[in-house]
Amino acid sequence: MKDIEKFIANDLLARHLGIEILEYSEGRAHAKMEITSHHLNSAGILHGGATFALADTVFAVASNSHGTLAVAINASVSFFKAVRSGVIFAEAEEVSINPKLATYLIKVQDEKDDVIALFQGTVYRKKERLSDLPGL
Amino acid sequence: MKDIEKFIANDLLARHLGIEILEYSEGRAHAKMEITSHHLNSAGILHGGATFALADTVFAVASNSHGTLAVAINASVSFFKAVRSGVIFAEAEEVSINPKLATYLIKVQDEKDDVIALFQGTVYRKKERLSDLPGL
Amino acid sequence: MKDIEKFIANDLLARHLGIEILEYSEGRAHAKMEITSHHLNSAGILHGGATFALADTVFAVASNSHGTLAVAINASVSFFKAVRSGVIFAEAEEVSINPKLATYLIKVQDEKDDVIALFQGTVYRKKERLSDLPGL
Amino acid sequence: MKDIEKFIANDLLARHLGIEILEYSEGRAHAKMEITSHHLNSAGILHGGATFALADTVFAVASNSHGTLAVAINASVSFFKAVRSGVIFAEAEEVSINPKLATYLIKVQDEKDDVIALFQGTVYRKKERLSDLPGL
Repeated sequence: MKDIEKFIANDLLARHLGIEILEYSEGRAHAKMEITSHHLNSAGILHGGATFALADTVFAVASNSHGTLAVAINASVSFFKAVRSGVIFAEAEEVSINPKLATYLIKVQDEKDDVIALFQGTVYRKKERLSDLPGL
Repeated sequence: MKDIEKFIANDLLARHLGIEILEYSEGRAHAKMEITSHHLNSAGILHGGATFALADTVFAVASNSHGTLAVAINASVSFFKAVRSGVIFAEAEEVSINPKLATYLIKVQDEKDDVIALFQGTVYRKKERLSDLPGL
Repeated sequence: MKDIEKFIANDLLARHLGIEILEYSEGRAHAKMEITSHHLNSAGILHGGATFALADTVFAVASNSHGTLAVAINASVSFFKAVRSGVIFAEAEEVSINPKLATYLIKVQDEKDDVIALFQGTVYRKKERLSDLPGL
Repeated sequence: MKDIEKFIANDLLARHLGIEILEYSEGRAHAKMEITSHHLNSAGILHGGATFALADTVFAVASNSHGTLAVAINASVSFFKAVRSGVIFAEAEEVSINPKLATYLIKVQDEKDDVIALFQGTVYRKKERLSDLPGL
């Protein structure tokens, strides 16, 4: 199993929230999350924290796909549409990369392909390889 | 029970992640989350999605504390320190409010009072009262 | 002259910084700025404030292109590449729009088409028409 | 003259926009800008690009105050109040710092002490000293 596959399997929050990585390649990742009652906020709609967690998970996979450890520095997210049920998807695209920093743009979409949130995040790229992480 | 207390009790993602509201007042909220394995990412540290969910929860309580429904438009978060265990705390402060929009600043701190993340978010304030929400 | 053209002509900061709108249509705008010494920071590179002003200007044109007044609520910008001279370009794309809010993504690129900054911003859409503004 | 004073004097965009540094110390900076017609947008109010430039300038001074070169990675800004004239002030506070990264929170206020914008930004800290910059 490649390092990034073990890396994905080790994401315990993603597992706790039912996030599933659909595919990934260098600098990209695609995931889905089926909305359950666990993901809802006080108004009965998808919690911003759940939407963010999905986006953050593809951000982590895309930014770690190069084989070295990347840690999030910051992220901004805009929310567009309230969703109550169904499956949502997130796709990460690499906008910029250099040896120290990389930035990703993530669209979160519902089953109608409506964009429900837009996420932009930057990582600091460490020198450690993923294979140096405990448990990998 | 006041509307905001029912509102807090209805936050199912917060419950799923073990987030506990410690106190709140008009425009403010304070919460804690004990880190468990469910909150960890692939590198064995607190997942950005869990940190965000804690901050987003106090953001929701503070912005809905005025009794009318507030929905998140956007949020930015900067991450400063990797945490693996223990309890983290988030406190929301209201920076600006008008009839349509309000903005909050949230500090997330660990047990040593180190700031581990800084979150800034804006809501759109609807006319509906919290008591009009289904389930409240 | 259409309202949006007068609106563009009235942007005095854009004029002071040499920002030129190249084209626009509903929800979109494209502009350029030739870097001069006025745009540099203390390190002799393009000032973040100048890059932001260019992005903010296409954000304003795109968000006001529907004929009603849009005011910025928030913006996030990531900076990728230091630039010292030449011409830079910014293009705004509408990601989401509803009667009250709209969000735009703006890429800032240099003459080599390298993305030097990525800007994401949200406006509050007022009911006033542009033609109601003083001076238009 | 200390390096940081030369650094401040070399900020040509700040000079072009009439930004004046009032004071600074390690990790902090305070500045003012008197609003003139050059700072206005198409609606006759203070341009987001001018507000950002003021905040970005104190961000640069505060983050470079330690004597080594700091370059902006990202910034988020929320806008609260339309201003047409008078003097505005920005104050930068250091929220977090490590050898590679530092984050600052900047409040922009008008003459009534109303917060008109809140800016949060992160820098990458290079090894070069300010005295190594050309012109310093």
